[in-house]
Amino acid sequence: MKIVAAKKILKANDQLAEENRERFTSAGIFGVNIVGSPGSGKTTLLEALFVRLKGRAKPAVIEGDIAGSIDAERIDAMGIPVVQINTEGACHLDANMIAAAARDLDLEGVDLLVVENVGNLVCTAGFDLGEHLRIVVLSVPEGDDKLAKYPAIFQGSDALVITKIDLLPYIKFDVDRVIGDMVRLAPQAEIFQVAAIKGEGMDSLAEWLARKCHAGKRTADNPAPDHS
Amino acid sequence: MKIVAAKKILKANDQLAEENRERFTSAGIFGVNIVGSPGSGKTTLLEALFVRLKGRAKPAVIEGDIAGSIDAERIDAMGIPVVQINTEGACHLDANMIAAAARDLDLEGVDLLVVENVGNLVCTAGFDLGEHLRIVVLSVPEGDDKLAKYPAIFQGSDALVITKIDLLPYIKFDVDRVIGDMVRLAPQAEIFQVAAIKGEGMDSLAEWLARKCHAGKRTADNPAPDHS
Repeated sequence: MKIVAAKKILKANDQLAEENRERFTSAGIFGVNIVGSPGSGKTTLLEALFVRLKGRAKPAVIEGDIAGSIDAERIDAMGIPVVQINTEGACHLDANMIAAAARDLDLEGVDLLVVENVGNLVCTAGFDLGEHLRIVVLSVPEGDDKLAKYPAIFQGSDALVITKIDLLPYIKFDVDRVIGDMVRLAPQAEIFQVAAIKGEGMDSLAEWLARKCHAGKRTADNPAPDHS
Repeated sequence: MKIVAAKKILKANDQLAEENRERFTSAGIFGVNIVGSPGSGKTTLLEALFVRLKGRAKPAVIEGDIAGSIDAERIDAMGIPVVQINTEGACHLDANMIAAAARDLDLEGVDLLVVENVGNLVCTAGFDLGEHLRIVVLSVPEGDDKLAKYPAIFQGSDALVITKIDLLPYIKFDVDRVIGDMVRLAPQAEIFQVAAIKGEGMDSLAEWLARKCHAGKRTADNPAPDHS
């Protein structure tokens, strides 16, 4: 029987994540880690983003799921390089999985590597993947109490994207409460409100991400942000 | 540094769960473990259920959350005995936590103990709490692909409750696909469709749960179901 210490795993993960980040940075690739609940709309957000980033960024995607390849097929259908990681039970991706998946991707010309993490508001919070930016997605139907209940994942994120705002007329959801909680937890974070399928708010999110991506490339020799 | 083996933890959990189940059974208490994504509507479902179970069952609740006591306060406001477990980062409850929380509850006269697990479609799947029945909640806004992507949690459940069906007119969600996936994963499971706040479908769910609860008490000396 193999005995594994959680502390050691996390330390090893942080080292691997740092190596990933250095590798991405020196290759001119900006890494984004997308986290959120199952069904919060992460893949739909990516589809809507990639349409708007055409000509401004060349993306590739790593999809993380417990099982199946539903999300990867959606990205593949857009002609975007994608690798699916099946965690087979694990509730988050880790830096080692990202290093392996990145080797399987054709990153020629790619300047934006988006990782869609396993749908989870808990486990994903503790694992730096080597990204430059972490975006947390919260959908209106999930409710406005999620920042109070799952603070860590929001605290460690660089941006909050509130999705499915077209459902606001049908659901009790206090946007101001969510914004207030996010400002308290992560004062530096950007906050966006979008309806990805209808397109509302997507242009400014795409604009911001393109700017971040290009700024990231220009400052490739600056120290990377610390998510640990 | 403490070194802990995952296999040992799971084995110890199964033993503790069995002890919980025996204790509940011999006390005439029917245990239900409610699992589902963050924001799938677990607490709202409980509120709608308890109103309908009045006079037919005397419930108590154990609430599991990473942080805070938002859900417990909602149950407490209904005059129902409730204990909040804060897992402080852990993505699921375990049998040991349930044993401790049950000691803190006034279970005098209680015949239905409902555990609302941490919002998570992954981690909660592997941990038997000692319940007699596991109900998995899937809300319409989460999407109809969740059974394909998180099969384990659905496979191990005795019932699927599809919540927020009043949002079906506004969201692409193929109910037949979900039902088909559930029948494949868990042929014995019951499937319900509800809109908890508006009340749609709640009466038959409450009726079913009351029947299960009373049948559970009648067959207290029968062997408990194996969720491991």
